Amino acid sequence: MNMSLRASIAREGRDVTPRMIAATRRLFAPLLDLADAGVLRDVPYGPDVRHRLNLYPGSDAAARPVLLFVGGGGYDQELWPDAEAGPDNVAAMAANRGLVGAAMHYRLAPEHRFPAGAEDVARAVAWLRDNVAEHGGDPLGIVLVGHCTGATHVGGYLADPALHVGPGAGIAGAVLMSGIYDPRHAAADDGAMAYFGPDRRNWSQASCAAGLLSSDVPLLFTVAELDPADHQTQAAQMVGAWGLAHAAYPQMHLLAGHNHVSPVLSVGTPERGIERLILDFVARVTA
Amino acid sequence: MNMSLRASIAREGRDVTPRMIAATRRLFAPLLDLADAGVLRDVPYGPDVRHRLNLYPGSDAAARPVLLFVGGGGYDQELWPDAEAGPDNVAAMAANRGLVGAAMHYRLAPEHRFPAGAEDVARAVAWLRDNVAEHGGDPLGIVLVGHCTGATHVGGYLADPALHVGPGAGIAGAVLMSGIYDPRHAAADDGAMAYFGPDRRNWSQASCAAGLLSSDVPLLFTVAELDPADHQTQAAQMVGAWGLAHAAYPQMHLLAGHNHVSPVLSVGTPERGIERLILDFVARVTA
Repeated sequence: MNMSLRASIAREGRDVTPRMIAATRRLFAPLLDLADAGVLRDVPYGPDVRHRLNLYPGSDAAARPVLLFVGGGGYDQELWPDAEAGPDNVAAMAANRGLVGAAMHYRLAPEHRFPAGAEDVARAVAWLRDNVAEHGGDPLGIVLVGHCTGATHVGGYLADPALHVGPGAGIAGAVLMSGIYDPRHAAADDGAMAYFGPDRRNWSQASCAAGLLSSDVPLLFTVAELDPADHQTQAAQMVGAWGLAHAAYPQMHLLAGHNHVSPVLSVGTPERGIERLILDFVARVTA
Repeated sequence: MNMSLRASIAREGRDVTPRMIAATRRLFAPLLDLADAGVLRDVPYGPDVRHRLNLYPGSDAAARPVLLFVGGGGYDQELWPDAEAGPDNVAAMAANRGLVGAAMHYRLAPEHRFPAGAEDVARAVAWLRDNVAEHGGDPLGIVLVGHCTGATHVGGYLADPALHVGPGAGIAGAVLMSGIYDPRHAAADDGAMAYFGPDRRNWSQASCAAGLLSSDVPLLFTVAELDPADHQTQAAQMVGAWGLAHAAYPQMHLLAGHNHVSPVLSVGTPERGIERLILDFVARVTA
């Protein structure tokens, strides 16, 4: 990352606050450099009002890999509604780079509790498998990209075979960015209490850590140098457990200079490190 | 890394054999692009015939940061003697980039057992602290870069306060590349048996893992995507333990596309990813 951007990010610290998110957006929004590739907005993928996704179709009938972005914000809120940049930038980037892109909403706590997020990922994947071919996408080439809460929901989907919509969870791979994988070892904030329920003794069922370790879906993880302590600890625990389970180092990338939200916001700007990491992974698992 | 180089490395596999090392050297040696900055060869830093280092001095009397490279190869052998490229390339690169560079030999098993390697790191650091100022170096700005066995010896030095030659181990930071930190959890090959002794029950004393976790010296770790299983597992265990100890993710960088030896061999070539990682760290800890 260029040094001035890195210094600006560092100045905002690692606490994820509305101020920090807004400041990080202001750094990247003016850099966004994506062509308007056309978008179908608020396509329903299920019965709930939040079962909606934005679809950035391919420009012809080729069977392109499909990137489905599942953004973060919290279990009881989304960053999306007031976004100046992102998370649609990830799906728009995909369409700009020759893929089909999609970005989904999901149901929120307190109305909808665990595993609603994971169920919604399943629904969106099922919808894409049924419908993406007519938009230039390959139903067998779907890659999920989850960030923060979105990574938790993608992990929840991968970890529960009962939700899987096909063999190998019906996807070619998944990117998990700064997720919480085992909520028992993370802060029990209001959003987590609302989503996982008031009795923490039940939260063990909500951990996707063991499920990710035994998944046969190709996984790419990221953690940011300026992620909050919980997110860093979760990533470190995943790496340690992965080493024990597989006698191997996982595809866990430490994103130098980035804070919790900047990796997503950098996608589609000339700061292409994160974008390349995602696109290289998509190319590898859909080859 | 460029795609053709990456494919060539992948073709050699992850087993560290003389053939694989030679093939990886052949990929990078023709790319080396370093000016001849002058070198003092085989400078003695202790009484043993192997207490020798090559010193790449600064070009003037400025107090430059000092990079001391501790190469690998095994507890009972060095890669160095027959090197077409490296490990002197790391020290030569340092001198080319405005630092003082040094690369040290160390005593070998079976004549010299644990902690001989760690003791030799201590001796070399002590020598540099006493002598590097007259070669343009800052005695308070020494950064160790250990690879493989060299990382194990640097870790052994950091983990044993009795060996430290000054506060903070007398150094500004250390880079640990593909090291074995706890030999109890790695292969007991002939070299390890010769160095750590035939009774594995005593090897717990030789683990530097806990010492690294409690060290106050800034540390940068790397692990290669094509490192052998032992090196990957050791790195993963370090990350997991770091997460528990510090509620934070360590500076552990996964080197995409690299095998066990290519990160070192890439230094001083136009493939500058590893070089930049090291130089950014040196700049940060000596600022």
